[in-house]
Amino acid sequence: MPHESSPIGLHTTMFIPAIAGQGSDKQRRKWLPLCESYRIVGTYAQTEVGHGTFVRGLETTATYDPQTEQFIINSPTLTSTKWWPGNLGKTTNHAVVLAQLYTGGKCHGIHAFIVQHRDMETHQPLPGVEVGDIGPKFGYEAVDNGFLRYHNVRIPRDNMLMRYSEVTKDGRYIRKANEKLTYGTMVFVRSAIVSTAAKNLGEACTIAIRYSAVRRQSEMKPGEPEPQVLDYQTQQHKLFPLLATSYAYWFAGRSMRETYLDIQGQIMAGDFKRLPELHALSAGLKAMSTWATNEGIETCRLSCGGHGYSHASGLPKIYVDATPACTYEGENTVMMLQTARYLMKACGQAAQGNELPGFVAYLNQKGVDRCMIGDDLSLVSLVSAYQHRARRLIGKAALQMKAHMERGQPQEVAWNLASVQLVHCAKAHVQCYVLKNFVDSIEQYGHHEDVARVLTQLCQLFAVDGILNNAGDFLQGGFMSYDQLDNMTAKLLDLLAAIRPNAVALVDAFDFSDHLLQSVLGRYDGNVYENMLEWAKSSPLNDTQVHDSYYQYMQPFLKEMHKSKL
Amino acid sequence: MPHESSPIGLHTTMFIPAIAGQGSDKQRRKWLPLCESYRIVGTYAQTEVGHGTFVRGLETTATYDPQTEQFIINSPTLTSTKWWPGNLGKTTNHAVVLAQLYTGGKCHGIHAFIVQHRDMETHQPLPGVEVGDIGPKFGYEAVDNGFLRYHNVRIPRDNMLMRYSEVTKDGRYIRKANEKLTYGTMVFVRSAIVSTAAKNLGEACTIAIRYSAVRRQSEMKPGEPEPQVLDYQTQQHKLFPLLATSYAYWFAGRSMRETYLDIQGQIMAGDFKRLPELHALSAGLKAMSTWATNEGIETCRLSCGGHGYSHASGLPKIYVDATPACTYEGENTVMMLQTARYLMKACGQAAQGNELPGFVAYLNQKGVDRCMIGDDLSLVSLVSAYQHRARRLIGKAALQMKAHMERGQPQEVAWNLASVQLVHCAKAHVQCYVLKNFVDSIEQYGHHEDVARVLTQLCQLFAVDGILNNAGDFLQGGFMSYDQLDNMTAKLLDLLAAIRPNAVALVDAFDFSDHLLQSVLGRYDGNVYENMLEWAKSSPLNDTQVHDSYYQYMQPFLKEMHKSKL
Repeated sequence: MPHESSPIGLHTTMFIPAIAGQGSDKQRRKWLPLCESYRIVGTYAQTEVGHGTFVRGLETTATYDPQTEQFIINSPTLTSTKWWPGNLGKTTNHAVVLAQLYTGGKCHGIHAFIVQHRDMETHQPLPGVEVGDIGPKFGYEAVDNGFLRYHNVRIPRDNMLMRYSEVTKDGRYIRKANEKLTYGTMVFVRSAIVSTAAKNLGEACTIAIRYSAVRRQSEMKPGEPEPQVLDYQTQQHKLFPLLATSYAYWFAGRSMRETYLDIQGQIMAGDFKRLPELHALSAGLKAMSTWATNEGIETCRLSCGGHGYSHASGLPKIYVDATPACTYEGENTVMMLQTARYLMKACGQAAQGNELPGFVAYLNQKGVDRCMIGDDLSLVSLVSAYQHRARRLIGKAALQMKAHMERGQPQEVAWNLASVQLVHCAKAHVQCYVLKNFVDSIEQYGHHEDVARVLTQLCQLFAVDGILNNAGDFLQGGFMSYDQLDNMTAKLLDLLAAIRPNAVALVDAFDFSDHLLQSVLGRYDGNVYENMLEWAKSSPLNDTQVHDSYYQYMQPFLKEMHKSKL
Repeated sequence: MPHESSPIGLHTTMFIPAIAGQGSDKQRRKWLPLCESYRIVGTYAQTEVGHGTFVRGLETTATYDPQTEQFIINSPTLTSTKWWPGNLGKTTNHAVVLAQLYTGGKCHGIHAFIVQHRDMETHQPLPGVEVGDIGPKFGYEAVDNGFLRYHNVRIPRDNMLMRYSEVTKDGRYIRKANEKLTYGTMVFVRSAIVSTAAKNLGEACTIAIRYSAVRRQSEMKPGEPEPQVLDYQTQQHKLFPLLATSYAYWFAGRSMRETYLDIQGQIMAGDFKRLPELHALSAGLKAMSTWATNEGIETCRLSCGGHGYSHASGLPKIYVDATPACTYEGENTVMMLQTARYLMKACGQAAQGNELPGFVAYLNQKGVDRCMIGDDLSLVSLVSAYQHRARRLIGKAALQMKAHMERGQPQEVAWNLASVQLVHCAKAHVQCYVLKNFVDSIEQYGHHEDVARVLTQLCQLFAVDGILNNAGDFLQGGFMSYDQLDNMTAKLLDLLAAIRPNAVALVDAFDFSDHLLQSVLGRYDGNVYENMLEWAKSSPLNDTQVHDSYYQYMQPFLKEMHKSKL
């Protein structure tokens, strides 16, 4: 189902993993066979209508009653209504529900509970449960995102997932394991989001670049045939940086996943040394990749002219399918501020002379005072410029925080007053990582000289385009000279021309099938126009020459109008 | 019908005006009464599946046959199929069709013809006509955008619109009036697009800003209630520049329309002196306003978190309704290059010491060498900085063109090789105009001190945000100092804080009704959550507790899955 989510997708991607990850061994033995044999179908109910990314703010309660050895699940306010979980509205019968745990009158924070909401025979909502679909959306037509309210619904004590903490029969609360373990899962999920974002952007680039090689427009030279729109510099300038961005985030998602798998053993063994760094980076990468994809898909769509607006292009569907990633699994700006929080800590440690790990080690380095980017656009000089920029902006944001606090602002207020700059420095850090990782990834292709050369051009374009879009950051303090900046424009245009002959091959290399793209404009064979007409003719509105609505509404309306004007 | 187009909208907005504007007096007397009494319903068929903004490239032919005194309308190729005209697919029975006029074997270019495509009684397509709907789209569900192919359809000679040129009975072609007259109409249409873009962005800002005052999230200070998200600096940074942009383009659209009406008399009298300047500006304004709106609506939507994705927000509908303006009535990049073409001419004239008119007069001025923006952010200093930037970029693009031509490139090739820079300088020019016009517009409110003060803050924010987003342009050559740039960031943050208390009032001032906004999130009364739940419950999927699809598909599927896993 290209660009559609399964109506039971949450069962396998969230419900089962939540039980597998947070259930005790005994709970896993009980519930997983039920899930895997589809005896029960579940979803994951975290978000509430009034509470999203700030998980601590959730209001649903799970209050332990030692008399009956049950939890009472309740939605105490309107804003505590569970909202958005996929497949919750009409499909599933169980959910892993996140709620504030209360025992003996004391709140122990957010915990997960398995709660049944529909009858296993009749599929009707259980007593005390209000459940339904949240209504039409921009996309996700195949997903019944739902709402759910509990009115003092009782579940057995055993339905609390107890791997990391436990409530005993008599109501004592016991914390069993380090919560940081769950950070590892978040890194893994985010790496998947980054890769999916790169893939979605790649799909949009494939459609737009292929179509731009088919579409002809205007006159470049009087009397000559209309050129392919891909030969226009402005069209190249819209599309090729996006192509480079798709490759860049593809490599980034892959590296993040590999790094996570590398250190998974350490994490499981309770060694969390490298986790904060990776966790912070994954937050920023999730945000930057989904933002870039969000904007990029629409740029691709608009680059196809009016036809991009038709579902024949396939692009609107890719967009509505991709855009939720900007807000789900952690709203992007909040994610950027998570990255910034880690950078502020790292910056403080560097100031104290401590050595920093992996991705932030460059904060320890002094770096060069002057930008070394020359005519050869050496990858080392580009990375070094991005490191300089990130280092400067991170240091500046830290100074800003300090200045606010010295003026007597509490840390939280200072944080808010510096947050635009904090997001900005986190962007610089993530872009720096993505570029560095792109450069490192090319090395793997060193033995394919031609491949490495073309990837190097893409990488240079990614870097140069980023410099031009953030020129102030690079000029500031005299790091990059005015001549160097002018040269960046010249280099950008050279790179567009250099990439042009390989552009179609670079999207074909993604190897997306026509079935996946669902795009008449982006067909592999390029036979766009005849298929546009076929596609249009097959539209349901064309089943009859004169549509029923004409007899029903239009004809009487026109007659009425005619009479009234006489 | 908020955010919906009428299924007979093109009849009044395009079909009738085309006949009124391009028909001879005799033709107007014949056709307009038929139109106005809805005896016939028409649309405007310009775009073809293979040809859009480049009107000269249209392939539909109208060949005069003096024997029968008829034109033969034909779609000679697949790519000549008319495509996109609104209301063409199933609703209308006539169209003003743009086609290449041939008489005596000679092509006279694009002309307009009234062609009937459906029977007046049966509404069936006429012989030789293939017509239908082009299929589903991102939005515009109420509009039957259509395709149309003619197989040698004959129409009377009188059906060519003959105000500006004529084909006589014996087939002679006579050009009667200056085509520049039609430029006036284009200016008027574009001013309407600019105003609509400003309005659409204003609607999105209204929803996002109101909701951001209702929504609470996270902790700013430990132990205190969750703050309104509008109190977060990052949220202000997303929304307030867009609010300022909406006001800026609203003023720009209004001024353009007023200027046009001012000089309409001159134009009708054949005095086209001021038209090229206005026409060129209107192209760039159309592009910049629709781009800004396109991006801005989505920023507003994403600033509402997940709920922005629900149709309860109203934002997806505003977006799909607004985004076609980037590609219709002249694709935006082509529009920017039209503006650039005029700027290149103006630049050449200025170099020869000629005085330039109105909006480009600043190209004659030398301006200041150093940016004069100080702590007071005086409007004069801001405008002067924008003029400096535009002047420098326009001059640079002209030099670039010249350099390519001196290297032996033909002008058209040089144009393409400089086009990224040409678009860039046109952006700078349009932004300069919009800022200057914003400043001038505030003067009209001088007698309302409070209003003028708040508008001045918005105007300063518009200017400062634009400087920060294009910092390289302002630093280049040492015009703005590094300290001045740092100060821009500080000023931006001050302005966000200053605008915060008035933000809700500034969107309320647009006076959009709840009916128009169709947004649960953006309700005037702020009662979001209770209405979200009501809205969701009224969704068709919730008509029954258990949806039919469950019995039909899900239950059998789950049983099957269960069996197969046993």
